[in-house]
Amino acid sequence: MSSARWEPADAAAAKTANTIQPPKNARHYAALPDPFPMQCGKMLHGAQIAYETWGEPNLAVDNVILLYTGLSPSAHAASSVEDSAPGWWEKIVGPGLAIDTTRWFVICVNALGSCFGSTGPATVNPETSELYRLEFPELALEDIARAGYETLRFLGITQLAAVIGPSLGGSVSLAFVALFPGVARQLLVISGTAAASPVAIALRSVQRESILLDPQWQHGNYPIDQPPITGIRLARKLGTITYRSSVEWEERFGRTRIPNQPSTTNDFAPEFEIEGYLEAQAEKFARAFDANCNLYLSRALDRFDLSDHGANTEIFARSGLERALVIGVESDMLFQIAEQESLAAELSSGGIDTTFARLDCREGHDSFLVNTDAFETVISSFLNA
Amino acid sequence: MSSARWEPADAAAAKTANTIQPPKNARHYAALPDPFPMQCGKMLHGAQIAYETWGEPNLAVDNVILLYTGLSPSAHAASSVEDSAPGWWEKIVGPGLAIDTTRWFVICVNALGSCFGSTGPATVNPETSELYRLEFPELALEDIARAGYETLRFLGITQLAAVIGPSLGGSVSLAFVALFPGVARQLLVISGTAAASPVAIALRSVQRESILLDPQWQHGNYPIDQPPITGIRLARKLGTITYRSSVEWEERFGRTRIPNQPSTTNDFAPEFEIEGYLEAQAEKFARAFDANCNLYLSRALDRFDLSDHGANTEIFARSGLERALVIGVESDMLFQIAEQESLAAELSSGGIDTTFARLDCREGHDSFLVNTDAFETVISSFLNA
Repeated sequence: MSSARWEPADAAAAKTANTIQPPKNARHYAALPDPFPMQCGKMLHGAQIAYETWGEPNLAVDNVILLYTGLSPSAHAASSVEDSAPGWWEKIVGPGLAIDTTRWFVICVNALGSCFGSTGPATVNPETSELYRLEFPELALEDIARAGYETLRFLGITQLAAVIGPSLGGSVSLAFVALFPGVARQLLVISGTAAASPVAIALRSVQRESILLDPQWQHGNYPIDQPPITGIRLARKLGTITYRSSVEWEERFGRTRIPNQPSTTNDFAPEFEIEGYLEAQAEKFARAFDANCNLYLSRALDRFDLSDHGANTEIFARSGLERALVIGVESDMLFQIAEQESLAAELSSGGIDTTFARLDCREGHDSFLVNTDAFETVISSFLNA
Repeated sequence: MSSARWEPADAAAAKTANTIQPPKNARHYAALPDPFPMQCGKMLHGAQIAYETWGEPNLAVDNVILLYTGLSPSAHAASSVEDSAPGWWEKIVGPGLAIDTTRWFVICVNALGSCFGSTGPATVNPETSELYRLEFPELALEDIARAGYETLRFLGITQLAAVIGPSLGGSVSLAFVALFPGVARQLLVISGTAAASPVAIALRSVQRESILLDPQWQHGNYPIDQPPITGIRLARKLGTITYRSSVEWEERFGRTRIPNQPSTTNDFAPEFEIEGYLEAQAEKFARAFDANCNLYLSRALDRFDLSDHGANTEIFARSGLERALVIGVESDMLFQIAEQESLAAELSSGGIDTTFARLDCREGHDSFLVNTDAFETVISSFLNA
């Protein structure tokens, strides 16, 4: 395996791929097979996946970890010499950390359908030379899993020490195990699910609708510099509520008022700190993630059901997995701990040596991002066992 | 007390009061004192409260129950000879039921600020002969409590066997006890709170914002026949999620698909039954409740904090209450059971003989409306003790 293969595979495609932010030096591109078959039956042409890597493959190339992300992050899981900006899992991925990059060769992929370098609704459709927008084929988590698998093949990698994913990435990891048995020896699913619950579907459905209803969405044809900010902001506020927990907010905000808030009668402006917090989160996110990509990924997560591939227990029995770690957080209202608990039970029933970790973090679904100490301990114990 | 006093007090006001639905025969009107002082410092003129009654006062007039509603219902808590339509608490209020109208004289008031006959943003401002809309003074739950108290005075009633309220009405009942000590002998707070939690504020804030962002809202000046349906619908969908529970939906809907759903590519239409259910709930509610009234009542609920009137324990100590019943539901995410539990503890600390009932209904906050059996038992045991 030559290091040259970690450079952009298709410079032309790379140039048009990113409409959100300029690629960082750490970002590399894998060309997907052309055509790339989607689960819906359509084909992608000239598609690519953006990825970053940390560490080095060993001689046996048996130390490779594939990391899938949650719904909205890029492949920048951690800082590196090439990109010093902190990544979304900065405290988990790195030298001496839970996913120790002095031992493991870690590859994080930006999901197919996302907007941080990988092909998706916000990249150019080579058949029309226009952005795909809603012409992008219907997306399934299986497509994201397959794109990750093809990224490995692009890099000449055939075996994984582990496939790891938090949140949506956990479900993608399960799709990976179902589609590519025998590739991964270990599976780590963190605050993920084998099939979204109805309340999670309901919450995401309302978030999607708030984007769809924004007149600026224009049925997906918004100018790139005029996205449906209003709908995205509202969706992000609701998302933020579902990503955290009432216990955390009781402790952090309680009923504290925003100080020196101008008292304008009947404008229904934010009055409580919790409202100001939602406002700040919405502001931060509003231009950071493409609206159409959000819609595609959100719906794919609703639709995913591991048991579409057979009984979950049988999927695991034929997966070739040796060990699995499932982590759940008690305060998670979106991916509830009962879902991780039954997933762990199914893995065990499938004959996989499974560890189930129940964490009592107060930060809800986002705990894996913001309260990493508990995860660090569990993940490093598992990977070092 | 003459029965004539239960007739509309101000026929002219009654005519203009209701912009949502024609008054039913069971609906009566109490004129509020003119001026009626609001907590914000402003005065209402010619204001009225719509109410319904069931049963008869006894000779001692010591069998009167005042019932406050949740955020959106009318005073029609139960059917009667004058209005046979089922009320919002049909299985709780009636002859032989938990609130037994052969024993109690029950008065249910439509909240000040609501739109079912009581004065509020959707009624005519006598100073301008236009609808109040956002000219309606800032509303507090204390104003709703006071308007209920004045309704009693209008009827010549000075003492209550009990003040009862579910949801927002529970908080209003607490305001009543704080403002009018010595009037009520018993207090029943059902799925209520002494002060909204930050997660409840956050959820209501996002609902309000979805109305505010609807261009049809027009800063409150929408034509009455063209309300901001889009925003109201979205708000109601989110509301519905918060009123029920994930356990209920897992059992009722799971991941069942809407049958025969036309498969239109990429319109992001509802696919799962849970989404169809939200759709139906939104549709039902969209024209049933005035948007501005919703905004006023929702914000008043966020702002209410019983402890603005002193330490809760001291408020109860001087309340004149003899007994209290606090009911909470374990699956309620909006008015969480910890809130009812601490309320019950404070009532006890205030020297009130308090019963706390923890119900394990699966229907979340709405349990008191849709799973009445458990409530029937607890309420009738308490009132018959």
